[in-house]
Amino acid sequence: MAERQRVLLLGATGETGGSILEALLEAGQFDVEIMVRPRSAEKPAVKQIANRGIKVRVSDLAAPEAQLVATLSGIDTFISAIGADDLIQQKSLVRAAKAAGVKRFVPCAFITVAPPTGVMLLRDEKEVIYNEIKRLVLPYTVIDVGFWHQFSYPRLPSGRVDYAMMMPNSTIHGDGSAPNLLTDLRDVGPFVARIIADDRTLNKYIYTWSDVLSENEIFNIVEEMSGEKIEREYESAQEVEQKVAAAASNLAQNPDIPMGRLQRYVTDYPYSKYVRGDNQPSYAKYLGYLDARELYPGFKPISFRDFFAEVLAGKGRKPYSGAPPAGKVADL
Amino acid sequence: MAERQRVLLLGATGETGGSILEALLEAGQFDVEIMVRPRSAEKPAVKQIANRGIKVRVSDLAAPEAQLVATLSGIDTFISAIGADDLIQQKSLVRAAKAAGVKRFVPCAFITVAPPTGVMLLRDEKEVIYNEIKRLVLPYTVIDVGFWHQFSYPRLPSGRVDYAMMMPNSTIHGDGSAPNLLTDLRDVGPFVARIIADDRTLNKYIYTWSDVLSENEIFNIVEEMSGEKIEREYESAQEVEQKVAAAASNLAQNPDIPMGRLQRYVTDYPYSKYVRGDNQPSYAKYLGYLDARELYPGFKPISFRDFFAEVLAGKGRKPYSGAPPAGKVADL
Repeated sequence: MAERQRVLLLGATGETGGSILEALLEAGQFDVEIMVRPRSAEKPAVKQIANRGIKVRVSDLAAPEAQLVATLSGIDTFISAIGADDLIQQKSLVRAAKAAGVKRFVPCAFITVAPPTGVMLLRDEKEVIYNEIKRLVLPYTVIDVGFWHQFSYPRLPSGRVDYAMMMPNSTIHGDGSAPNLLTDLRDVGPFVARIIADDRTLNKYIYTWSDVLSENEIFNIVEEMSGEKIEREYESAQEVEQKVAAAASNLAQNPDIPMGRLQRYVTDYPYSKYVRGDNQPSYAKYLGYLDARELYPGFKPISFRDFFAEVLAGKGRKPYSGAPPAGKVADL
Repeated sequence: MAERQRVLLLGATGETGGSILEALLEAGQFDVEIMVRPRSAEKPAVKQIANRGIKVRVSDLAAPEAQLVATLSGIDTFISAIGADDLIQQKSLVRAAKAAGVKRFVPCAFITVAPPTGVMLLRDEKEVIYNEIKRLVLPYTVIDVGFWHQFSYPRLPSGRVDYAMMMPNSTIHGDGSAPNLLTDLRDVGPFVARIIADDRTLNKYIYTWSDVLSENEIFNIVEEMSGEKIEREYESAQEVEQKVAAAASNLAQNPDIPMGRLQRYVTDYPYSKYVRGDNQPSYAKYLGYLDARELYPGFKPISFRDFFAEVLAGKGRKPYSGAPPAGKVADL
């Protein structure tokens, strides 16, 4: 893929999509456009992107196939950073991408490493899309990123890092020893930019990371760097499993309540990461993933320590808060 | 895996299992035992195997887990050549194998290369088992063999190869040009013996083959070798698709009739192989399979031409006829 790629990104106003958009633009080697659904076309965040000279393609995902194919025409690489509640809607995109001759489809993966089915609701739904891709023999790359630094540190008793936390807590799950792949949200994009320019990643799964840390290790680092003693709360493996069972049962009884889905997949994560220990390099390799750090040894991702030093210095940013990405303010 | 492996084989009296059993014994490097279900323990074919000094372990697949774990205890490699109607029953075997510490589980694959879901009923069911394996982090190898020589040649007008054909026919599907992976049934075992002794195949998918031939090429070879002109019948892609739809609809209406399943998966094959063109090296590599011929360049599988020369010479054998494997009569 030496020639300049035309990349179409869906979900550019989200956290993952935002990281990807900035990195693709910064790389300078892609013709970047974004795709939005009609309901989002007038959003200020989309207008802001359009005002930077980025072309916006608008289409409903339930549009007739010919319209979706037209929307994807001329695109080399399609990247989906669609929301967690709309994963299955990617089916129409997969079919349109095949018909439009897209050369690489990057479905919405971007989560922790987990079994294909039977453990995490989100992963189960992603698998439906991966299988549709394989049925249609569409060239693809699945990119998982582990868990973000931004969600991976505990509350400090002083409260001085609360400003950047979505849900302050200081819980250790199980015995806290499960190794856990971590990537800074801001590095998702730079990894993606490298991966989509690389023929070695075509029709492969790949995981990104800066650190592999257990909860115990994270708490120790945070205590050491802050000088504060965290009041550790413990949730046993059994308690985690009970929460998953309760969330699954809730969702089964009330399948149409969005909060039920959210509750389910928020409880799936600690079960998969900490009780099962899925989100680690050995399991990723067992599943056939490539390691992005082995492919791009020259790229130095933001370490958890460097990330947390920023948070301590008041330079953190609360995810899903609508604030511009940290370190990217000047660009906007 | 330098030390001697203890291998337990389920389905040893079947066609695939029989090929595997003979090759494992012939290799001389494995301690081979077979597993049978209680309903099969008294079958003459099982008695014959036992009379050759091969240990027989008996257990129901629906037995309590502790019993199945005991049945699998001490086993390094478990190979399942279970029947096509019992695929889902392997779930209990997967769980027991994990608990028993089996070092490699070879689930019943042994079919053509096809998409993980949505095309072939048998493949969909195998996928359920592969996903259970991955959920339990059980070491595994999936071995697919393409289509057997024994099922891949047309009827001759003289009738002289009818004796070895299960269902004589001379149909070409679609335009007959789809490349198609072929393995002689007798080579399934020798490939498996190499694969399970090889650390490179652990947690991988691998396909075996002697030839890659289209239906047109097969018909040409058969005409050339026999000196007869085949009366080619053509079934269009659309007709194949209609048969699949009819079989699927039949099965949905009568899910409990075994013939309905058979009809469904017998129609799935030509659709997948010849209309979609799934059963070929490029698609296998897209799906991440290793190529057994690349791993074992010293092994010379029986070519389609050599196989068909035997059939013309009256030395063929009808599969599923209860006859001993061709070329193996002396062993029995």
